[in-house]
Amino acid sequence: MKLSVAALIFSALAVGALAGPLDGAVYSDDDRYHPSFPEEPIKPNARNAQQEQTIAYWRDNAKRTVESIVNRKQNKNVAKNVIMFLGDGMSISTVAMARVYAGGEEKSLSFEEFPYIGMSKTYCVDYQVPDSACTATAYLTGVKGNYETIGVNAKVPSYDCKAELDKSTHTHSIAKWAMDAGKDAGLVTTTRVTHASPAGVYAHTANRDWENDYMIAEEGCDPNELDDIAEQLVHGETGKRLKVIMGGGRREFLDTNIMDEEYNSRGYRRDGKNLIQDWLDLAGSSENRTYVWKKSDLMAVDPKKTDRLLGLFEPGHCAYNLDRFRDNMMEEPTLAEMVDKATDVLSQNEKGFFLFVEGGRIDHGHHDTWARLALDETVEFAKAIELARKKFSEEDTLIVVTSDHSHSVSYSGYASRGNDIFGTGGTGSDGIPYMTISYANGPGFATHVDAVNKARVDPRKLDTSPNDFRFPATLPVGSETHGGEDVAVYASGPWAHLFTGTYEQNTIPHMMAYAACVGDGLKAC
Amino acid sequence: MKLSVAALIFSALAVGALAGPLDGAVYSDDDRYHPSFPEEPIKPNARNAQQEQTIAYWRDNAKRTVESIVNRKQNKNVAKNVIMFLGDGMSISTVAMARVYAGGEEKSLSFEEFPYIGMSKTYCVDYQVPDSACTATAYLTGVKGNYETIGVNAKVPSYDCKAELDKSTHTHSIAKWAMDAGKDAGLVTTTRVTHASPAGVYAHTANRDWENDYMIAEEGCDPNELDDIAEQLVHGETGKRLKVIMGGGRREFLDTNIMDEEYNSRGYRRDGKNLIQDWLDLAGSSENRTYVWKKSDLMAVDPKKTDRLLGLFEPGHCAYNLDRFRDNMMEEPTLAEMVDKATDVLSQNEKGFFLFVEGGRIDHGHHDTWARLALDETVEFAKAIELARKKFSEEDTLIVVTSDHSHSVSYSGYASRGNDIFGTGGTGSDGIPYMTISYANGPGFATHVDAVNKARVDPRKLDTSPNDFRFPATLPVGSETHGGEDVAVYASGPWAHLFTGTYEQNTIPHMMAYAACVGDGLKAC
Repeated sequence: MKLSVAALIFSALAVGALAGPLDGAVYSDDDRYHPSFPEEPIKPNARNAQQEQTIAYWRDNAKRTVESIVNRKQNKNVAKNVIMFLGDGMSISTVAMARVYAGGEEKSLSFEEFPYIGMSKTYCVDYQVPDSACTATAYLTGVKGNYETIGVNAKVPSYDCKAELDKSTHTHSIAKWAMDAGKDAGLVTTTRVTHASPAGVYAHTANRDWENDYMIAEEGCDPNELDDIAEQLVHGETGKRLKVIMGGGRREFLDTNIMDEEYNSRGYRRDGKNLIQDWLDLAGSSENRTYVWKKSDLMAVDPKKTDRLLGLFEPGHCAYNLDRFRDNMMEEPTLAEMVDKATDVLSQNEKGFFLFVEGGRIDHGHHDTWARLALDETVEFAKAIELARKKFSEEDTLIVVTSDHSHSVSYSGYASRGNDIFGTGGTGSDGIPYMTISYANGPGFATHVDAVNKARVDPRKLDTSPNDFRFPATLPVGSETHGGEDVAVYASGPWAHLFTGTYEQNTIPHMMAYAACVGDGLKAC
Repeated sequence: MKLSVAALIFSALAVGALAGPLDGAVYSDDDRYHPSFPEEPIKPNARNAQQEQTIAYWRDNAKRTVESIVNRKQNKNVAKNVIMFLGDGMSISTVAMARVYAGGEEKSLSFEEFPYIGMSKTYCVDYQVPDSACTATAYLTGVKGNYETIGVNAKVPSYDCKAELDKSTHTHSIAKWAMDAGKDAGLVTTTRVTHASPAGVYAHTANRDWENDYMIAEEGCDPNELDDIAEQLVHGETGKRLKVIMGGGRREFLDTNIMDEEYNSRGYRRDGKNLIQDWLDLAGSSENRTYVWKKSDLMAVDPKKTDRLLGLFEPGHCAYNLDRFRDNMMEEPTLAEMVDKATDVLSQNEKGFFLFVEGGRIDHGHHDTWARLALDETVEFAKAIELARKKFSEEDTLIVVTSDHSHSVSYSGYASRGNDIFGTGGTGSDGIPYMTISYANGPGFATHVDAVNKARVDPRKLDTSPNDFRFPATLPVGSETHGGEDVAVYASGPWAHLFTGTYEQNTIPHMMAYAACVGDGLKAC
């Protein structure tokens, strides 16, 4: 019926029965801007279909929201503890899609309940769309640098070994500022602990790939002159002071002649070093250092008897959460479990702590157009935040949640309420349904375009259920790209009200430092 | 050099020279997650290349930001005036791209300088991804409804004429709440004044397409029983009380036997009515009503001598701003000009006013994958907001800027700093460059995929400069679709601090009502 009306109008215009008005657009009429889908029945939202139909439901909902906001008091306490959660590649669309995956459009991820929100502008000095290295420099050290560089200002071009040696270019992170003020600091990530984001806590490098000495040498630089990232983590001025280090990345610590504890694999180093042993050997006479590489050992750690904790649970990155179940990798802790133990250890300092926590594989899921994994990692990230928020009082612990950059992922079409976020959102003009989730580019292109006749593959003919099902992409790129738009900043606790508005990403550590009274910038006290 | 290192590592792994560690991912190694582009020289950012290389520049920038936020005082004045600006389809990526188009990554659109930001959840009762009708119901009347319906709750399914007749389903907008409190109210849009978003101010309808009686009849409903949207604007309980109505849409007011003033075209109505004349005839004995259809007449309007103002500048939507220049349509006012005159008229009421302003064609540009037009309309929208913010004091005028829903548009790739936002952002694995801007779906597909061999068209071979150049899309859809993720809310003025956090879209009018002390919900006074 609706379609025929539209057709009538269009044909009437065409034959001039109605002299066609210049409809604003010289290009086209716009009646088609809001397509009807009479062929797609609306699935009622079983969860709360009845109540959502009433005026009272929405008015009462809004009233409760307004009431809680009006009654909110600004918290101007000094932040004893600061926990920064970084969802790598967690775009705003990722958050909204993860919400649907976790429970429904009307649900909220834990950090979405935080009272204050801001927008972070993510560009780097040399790139419009950044990577995780230059953004780590921004949100941890308060200075923007160049693509692929970490802990150095933009006088250091990527891969420039000489420039890196100039210490006047080095930028220091809020972890150092916190430790200089007598607090403890640590990092937890689901990636290698030497990967770009966590490296922002402690490293200064002209290239993020220099996680071990071999990578430096291969680039024509001298590993005797430059310290690789793992070396800086164990022996560097900030790295060696960290109380807690947890994530993946054993291979970056071990020489190629040293076998991994868990797998039949070797380290990546070529300098003969075992940096895990080095780290243990650095213990002072009265210091209790613990190294663990599996979850059962982590769970057994007594924080009261542990001065420093190093946990490296994989040679590379930690497994995707969904793969832990599939591959029976039950000796890998969840992000929430790592955060729980890390904060147990750090809480022993009366002066408080700074902890950096990364949900690092949201980004990796997207790069592979594995949307299912990206969204599941986002939910795991939210669980870790929920644990931290419940564990530490809003009175003395500031929690800031943000992302480093966006991705090219879209959440589009007109799916009905409660529809599977991994399902279809409508039908193309080629008569083939399309998926709600897609990417501007990436390896998913090959899954969805027939290699022979180059026609679009009907997603109904694909098994979309595997963890590693690739979602569609506009064009083929080996690794789906980042996005350039702003990411959100969510804040709760002391001075959380600072984090609202739109600001440059490098402002974030300065705001955290203000709340915690650390660093040499502005402070709350 | 960088590529060869990567190749070395991969081949070493492949032949087992380094026993391949299980790299976290069972699917792939991740070194490729941050591609280097040695073939793409970095263009230095001429604007501020030198200063951005220093640590001091970024620290000073951050310090200024923190200082201004810390010194910000909560404004708890009652809002005499409330102006709501709605960028239709203005996704967060649209804002970021428009910023680059307007001046550069480091620039801000006027409303990005507003102190408070929130996130609005846009789903409707029956759809995961909404349209502009059910969202207008949410952000103007405070209740969520069904797709395509306006000013009614979700008991009214789209196209259900009988359900619409039940007045207990009708929801009323903050314009009515404001007028009931003695303020004046009005609307300004770049679309037809009877289009979905502005209709949220005054209409109750089971379908947004029922802008005139003919559309109702064609749907099998009785136009004698149901009032079409134009009829409701002129004679309806809220519409007839509006002091200012400005935008496009003359055709919806005029019978098909009545010729348009400006073009050789006819009205769309079939009931013999001339609703423009009706509106003029409604003038009370001492009331001064003015109807204008061109800019020069609008400019000549003396607000002191004008009690009510109706401006209809096109039969359909107002022209895209860029087309005004191309097509020499200099008798079409800009959005800022309309807002200026509208607020002049409304300011005569000592009790203040509520004004709804829509930048409505951002959405249309996107639907046609005309990114250039979408971004330019966003900049025009920002100019209108700038005018309003400068014209009215933050002490007594609350300005809220938001969007109704997102779009499928991506801002992706790794373009260097200062690169043309309409240019390319990298090269696909097919060896062909790709554009920074692309869509998950839409008519741009046909422009970028060769109809014969179905290969991707090299954008360098296309003239990308026309206003109506179509940007690429993953798959063909006649009208590019909306996106489902949250949109931002920017607020400035009394009680602007309420607008932070993540909330349902229907909370927005309740927050505005709180600030202005109107409506029957919670109020600041």
